[in-house]
Amino acid sequence: MPLIDDSAYINAALYGQRYMENQRYQRGIEALRRVNEEGITNLIRSLDAVAPDLARYVIEFAYGDIYTRPGLQAKQRELCIVATLTALGNRDDQLRDHIQAALNVGCTRQELVETILMMAVYAGFPVAIKGMQIAREILLRE
Amino acid sequence: MPLIDDSAYINAALYGQRYMENQRYQRGIEALRRVNEEGITNLIRSLDAVAPDLARYVIEFAYGDIYTRPGLQAKQRELCIVATLTALGNRDDQLRDHIQAALNVGCTRQELVETILMMAVYAGFPVAIKGMQIAREILLRE
Amino acid sequence: MPLIDDSAYINAALYGQRYMENQRYQRGIEALRRVNEEGITNLIRSLDAVAPDLARYVIEFAYGDIYTRPGLQAKQRELCIVATLTALGNRDDQLRDHIQAALNVGCTRQELVETILMMAVYAGFPVAIKGMQIAREILLRE
Amino acid sequence: MPLIDDSAYINAALYGQRYMENQRYQRGIEALRRVNEEGITNLIRSLDAVAPDLARYVIEFAYGDIYTRPGLQAKQRELCIVATLTALGNRDDQLRDHIQAALNVGCTRQELVETILMMAVYAGFPVAIKGMQIAREILLRE
Amino acid sequence: MPLIDDSAYINAALYGQRYMENQRYQRGIEALRRVNEEGITNLIRSLDAVAPDLARYVIEFAYGDIYTRPGLQAKQRELCIVATLTALGNRDDQLRDHIQAALNVGCTRQELVETILMMAVYAGFPVAIKGMQIAREILLRE
Amino acid sequence: MPLIDDSAYINAALYGQRYMENQRYQRGIEALRRVNEEGITNLIRSLDAVAPDLARYVIEFAYGDIYTRPGLQAKQRELCIVATLTALGNRDDQLRDHIQAALNVGCTRQELVETILMMAVYAGFPVAIKGMQIAREILLRE
Repeated sequence: MPLIDDSAYINAALYGQRYMENQRYQRGIEALRRVNEEGITNLIRSLDAVAPDLARYVIEFAYGDIYTRPGLQAKQRELCIVATLTALGNRDDQLRDHIQAALNVGCTRQELVETILMMAVYAGFPVAIKGMQIAREILLRE
Repeated sequence: MPLIDDSAYINAALYGQRYMENQRYQRGIEALRRVNEEGITNLIRSLDAVAPDLARYVIEFAYGDIYTRPGLQAKQRELCIVATLTALGNRDDQLRDHIQAALNVGCTRQELVETILMMAVYAGFPVAIKGMQIAREILLRE
Repeated sequence: MPLIDDSAYINAALYGQRYMENQRYQRGIEALRRVNEEGITNLIRSLDAVAPDLARYVIEFAYGDIYTRPGLQAKQRELCIVATLTALGNRDDQLRDHIQAALNVGCTRQELVETILMMAVYAGFPVAIKGMQIAREILLRE
Repeated sequence: MPLIDDSAYINAALYGQRYMENQRYQRGIEALRRVNEEGITNLIRSLDAVAPDLARYVIEFAYGDIYTRPGLQAKQRELCIVATLTALGNRDDQLRDHIQAALNVGCTRQELVETILMMAVYAGFPVAIKGMQIAREILLRE
Repeated sequence: MPLIDDSAYINAALYGQRYMENQRYQRGIEALRRVNEEGITNLIRSLDAVAPDLARYVIEFAYGDIYTRPGLQAKQRELCIVATLTALGNRDDQLRDHIQAALNVGCTRQELVETILMMAVYAGFPVAIKGMQIAREILLRE
Repeated sequence: MPLIDDSAYINAALYGQRYMENQRYQRGIEALRRVNEEGITNLIRSLDAVAPDLARYVIEFAYGDIYTRPGLQAKQRELCIVATLTALGNRDDQLRDHIQAALNVGCTRQELVETILMMAVYAGFPVAIKGMQIAREILLRE
């Protein structure tokens, strides 16, 4: 699944040397390689022609600044993100990516299922059901 | 802070013996005593005259059925709930209760702050700022 | 509670004769008098100095065009609106007005309580609790 | 459309005798048979391999506890649910199921159309349009 | 792209002469012809058999009353609408139509991209990413 | 209204020299001084004791990176932000700050009123009314 050569190409081609020298960007891309390299590669591709800067901010800010802060482990972060995206109920692709990311950083299937199920209480059954159906696709494919 | 006698009264007066014999209700009320007894006591009072059953469902279903399921620790559950209520952005009283509950079950201040801060990425700065201002009230009072 | 003279004044002063000759406006203001005259009077006042047209659209479009369409009774409409505003969870003043309106058009207290309680299933306990606390203020004051 | 044998099989296979002896579960499954058996059968199937308990809570809590409470008729409940899911705007499959359920319990096409149309006022035209397009699929297929 | 004959047919067939004589309707349909004729034609078709009145309110109220008010140019309106629909995150078809409309009334690609990108700050990266992917489809097709 | 000395103090005290040397932070703080210095000063104060980094990200990322990008004027940005915060409906303090900011960068009262009014179409009357009531407080105080 890791597409190292490819994302190296993407980094070089889209962002050039200047971002590779940028600490925030470097820290972000390293985090993303551990967490969900396939997801970010697809994301960069889906934005390239119109808004490469949005992908850059995902890497620099969302991952380089925030995700890599001390004080919460990646597992804890991913469960919180899965809970949130399930509850907001309208970010399916992102939820899919973060369920995969949660598995990649070591969350168990049971932790994921419990997190999504609990959203029935806080955001209603419809979003919990939809979140679980998305989780099911990923969990059955693993 | 624990209002044991009072909530025992509330249980006896509002729900009567029959709920105390109900396993789901018992399991829920025990969880709530560990997690946030003051919050649930206030909640029961705020609903008593019009919808005591809604408070009963919080206890039986939200706590007796869901919160006490194995597979996620209380700390993990509370961080996910705090993340979600911050992101949904319009449940201030509940967010307040769950920030308190998170502290009660052993989440650190840093874990809470990081969880709320991270919502800037997933649900925008306005809800993260509002969540942090609510957390601040509670953290400075402790 | 009905402020007939006052709202007649408001109509004449703010909107002038021309709206009184407008069928859609007339139909809307008549519906509002039956449904929740106090609510609309407060609304008109709260918008007057900056956006009287927004109040006019509430009357002409929301009430004159939509609310007065055949096919749903006022009671059915109000229960649907109370359900929706509870679920959306961030329109407290409007929810308050429509709980009052529901009572004014003949919904029972039980129907209101059941409608709000049911939102725990479809939009989560936090919004159902908040909606019920707003209903409680109104129901205990009646 | 009713899949009685099949859902009996699902009940027996997935949930076993113990739920069939459970009053809340029984009450829920009976309500669902009246309301939208096909919908719940599909739901149970879509969750089976990862979270059968979520389907069980839908049956026990959402239907066994809440939907079957006295004080609101099934028709009133379904119109409120259709209004809410239209307004929340991101639960298409659930909206589809409840439009079908509304027809099954006796709501007229006109009541459904008026309920969805009214959401233009309370949650904006975009969600009302989307809800109406979903209703159209179902109404034209009947 | 303009389907003048076709929409003339639709106007005549669905709404009849009486709407063509209606000033609000006329003003709305003229605005829509300038802004996004293809979008409204598709919308009218998607609603015709079940709720032609909803399409009529879009034309009369959303366009005839509101969109054509003085005080904001069409370009400013469309950027605000694109921002809003991106942030709400669950109205994809409508967002698509308004990105096209924004281009039709003279917004530049850069203005559109900046507007959507900025939503990462106010409503979170997930909705900004989704909005940008929708914009990409349209911008690459132009 | 500008509190230059005070915010200079805040910068020096909370963030220290190191941020003042940071280009992104500098660019952000300069933008904020033009746009809404009072708002950001209050924000920094409301977060200081628990999460000064969140205020720093507002300055560095939201303003230093995004707000100051070329391609949209401050006036256009503020109208889009006011539209979005009105439509999301649960970020009142932020909406208040951005209505003030919009006036500060040169938006007219009419542009603000039209932007908020238009949200009745895209997100429903309840949020438009609430947004207008917030605007009214600010516009009548000016």
